[in-house]
Amino acid sequence: MNFSSTEQWLTRKILRMAGNPPFQLAVGRDAADLMTNDGSKSTTVVVSDRRMLAKLALDPEMAFGDGYSDGRIEVRGDLTAFLEELMRFMQSGEKAAWYARLRSWWLDRVNDNTTRGSRKNIHRHYDLNVDFYKLWLDKRMVYTCAYFPTTGATLEDAQVAKMDHVCRKVQLQPGEKVVDAGCGWGALALHMAKHYGVTVRAFNISHEQIVYAREQAKREGLSGQVEFIEDDYRNISGRQDAFMSVGMLEHVGLRHYEEFSRVIHRTIGDWGRGLVHFIGRNYPHPFSPWMRKRIFPGAYAPALSEVAPVFEPGNLSVLDVENLRMHYAKTLEHWLARFETSVDRVTQMFGPEFVRAWRLYLAGSLAAFRSGGLQLFQIAFAGANCRQIPWTRAHLYEDIQPAAKEEKWMHATP
Amino acid sequence: MNFSSTEQWLTRKILRMAGNPPFQLAVGRDAADLMTNDGSKSTTVVVSDRRMLAKLALDPEMAFGDGYSDGRIEVRGDLTAFLEELMRFMQSGEKAAWYARLRSWWLDRVNDNTTRGSRKNIHRHYDLNVDFYKLWLDKRMVYTCAYFPTTGATLEDAQVAKMDHVCRKVQLQPGEKVVDAGCGWGALALHMAKHYGVTVRAFNISHEQIVYAREQAKREGLSGQVEFIEDDYRNISGRQDAFMSVGMLEHVGLRHYEEFSRVIHRTIGDWGRGLVHFIGRNYPHPFSPWMRKRIFPGAYAPALSEVAPVFEPGNLSVLDVENLRMHYAKTLEHWLARFETSVDRVTQMFGPEFVRAWRLYLAGSLAAFRSGGLQLFQIAFAGANCRQIPWTRAHLYEDIQPAAKEEKWMHATP
Repeated sequence: MNFSSTEQWLTRKILRMAGNPPFQLAVGRDAADLMTNDGSKSTTVVVSDRRMLAKLALDPEMAFGDGYSDGRIEVRGDLTAFLEELMRFMQSGEKAAWYARLRSWWLDRVNDNTTRGSRKNIHRHYDLNVDFYKLWLDKRMVYTCAYFPTTGATLEDAQVAKMDHVCRKVQLQPGEKVVDAGCGWGALALHMAKHYGVTVRAFNISHEQIVYAREQAKREGLSGQVEFIEDDYRNISGRQDAFMSVGMLEHVGLRHYEEFSRVIHRTIGDWGRGLVHFIGRNYPHPFSPWMRKRIFPGAYAPALSEVAPVFEPGNLSVLDVENLRMHYAKTLEHWLARFETSVDRVTQMFGPEFVRAWRLYLAGSLAAFRSGGLQLFQIAFAGANCRQIPWTRAHLYEDIQPAAKEEKWMHATP
Repeated sequence: MNFSSTEQWLTRKILRMAGNPPFQLAVGRDAADLMTNDGSKSTTVVVSDRRMLAKLALDPEMAFGDGYSDGRIEVRGDLTAFLEELMRFMQSGEKAAWYARLRSWWLDRVNDNTTRGSRKNIHRHYDLNVDFYKLWLDKRMVYTCAYFPTTGATLEDAQVAKMDHVCRKVQLQPGEKVVDAGCGWGALALHMAKHYGVTVRAFNISHEQIVYAREQAKREGLSGQVEFIEDDYRNISGRQDAFMSVGMLEHVGLRHYEEFSRVIHRTIGDWGRGLVHFIGRNYPHPFSPWMRKRIFPGAYAPALSEVAPVFEPGNLSVLDVENLRMHYAKTLEHWLARFETSVDRVTQMFGPEFVRAWRLYLAGSLAAFRSGGLQLFQIAFAGANCRQIPWTRAHLYEDIQPAAKEEKWMHATP
């Protein structure tokens, strides 16, 4: 190697912060050399110059994300496998430096999910051209974790299975009134109306998604049964039989769980039921600062200790918590594969830097679900006096083919 | 009515503290009158004298429990139904007076579940003559919530179904090593060894229960496979594949969850699985002071926000939380009915005051599960790197007859 002593010091520091993973870290001029010898290390990260190295040492995650996106950092090898291994090593790495922690804290403040802040945050991600999302989501445009009854199910089928799974969990009955908080492009609201005979009020603050959802309702002849409302969850009013929220809690933000809790309780009272589906964690931890800056401003993935207080003030009973972490890994495998086949189209739409940033977001999320850094929780709950509670959960698995024996184990790595 | 003004004032105060339930409250000399008129109020509580009334006003729950036990308070009508209605009204009653709160706090201190304190607390309840428990438990002596695949299942079958349900949840495999923390009379440990081919180390600090369990192991030829150890859960050592604890967390005490958390993590590491089954609540609330004084010293039923920190420090993944509250109500219906048919035997054993105290404990618990004051949680979890996680939960319901349609709803009242 031909590193200067500063570069060597920075390299050692960066690797130590990451828990000393078995990767090569090289600056541009050495990269060619490295690739010709030492086959023992599977992945090489090539950094453009010494300035990038210094940035990595100061705020590793943010510098890596931005450097990877603008091409000053290159990962030679499988990106997802690299990120997954990195995440496992990072658990034993050093705590983030003061600068990175300060930046993370600051991001949290400026992206606070107030009524106004939420609009800005949601606009950034969900108001992107729908044609872009059509390239890699399923045909119903469900942008949340799917449920694969068997590991070989298609993404299309798994998204339908997920919608049925959550509807069964709250035992929707024909004629009931349901609120859908954070309805995306409307797939779940339409599914509930069509297949469970309920009336739905669906809320979302993404203008583009609401416009799309209304068109879909019209196309399917469900406009009379499903109302898509462009408004904040805090403005949900009126009594409903059930409260559904699939993939919105991540955008509520820890500081606003009390408001969210009050909205749920005033919606279902002491007699209704509900379900909240969200990305969580095994223990409290800040959400990736790079993701918060570039992909999901204001996002947070809570631990169960943090989310239990959503239910407790209203005397709501938690009935069922299911962890579907590996189902999200599989969902992301599908999304990433479809994204990769559409790279030319996405490049035309948004340019190469966007492609690399979104590849990192999708691969990083996949790696996080595989390594256990992220979990996916579905929590079914009911008001304290609710009588419509199934005696057992067997009804969730009726009419569903049991998974083949070899598919019954969830493997942490592929 | 013929109350003195003091008695009227005390009566109004007591009823207000209880949320003004629709009951009659009378002192001895008026009781006969009351029973002849006013058929509109279903239950009458007859109090022996004015002193008892004053005690009820000062510390209602403790006074009621002790007064009911020693016969100075009489409930005319169905005891369980009365308690259930009372509990519903009490939710809107006044906060306990300073004296009752102080007494509750003091009980918590003197009955702290230290290693020494736990021995004393457990001895009080579980070292009672086994012949007493044989009168009203199932034949395998399972003293925890059963699992009724259908509401009509027998108690005997429902206790076996519960043991299978928890074993399936942790996917026990032949040859694995399992620890059972708080093993009671040994039924689960023996069931796991016999039907799942695992080796079990089972811990309990009740001497009488351990003696009984060892005899059972010998009788069933399982002494080589199941070791019953008379020791505190804090002294569990060695690596195991799975950690089971059914009905012990209630006796660990909130102040000792960190110790409990460390024991679990050092037992299963990052690769094992486990299950904790316990009586909980919708939100944090002190455990009944009378129960803590007379029946279960040191007991506490935690909310999920309080128990999540058992798993978080060890980076354990919560995989599945199931609320079986109404299954405990049904279990208690069976226990109470068997207890009532054995009242003469119990009176011979321990006298009439014991009978009344235990009737109140069983009926009060049944009422609490029916009214939602208590919940029953089973939490299945795994180490962060565990790969033995089922893909879905369908396997829990294979080979099990789905409940008949009319049995699928859990009703909060019978």
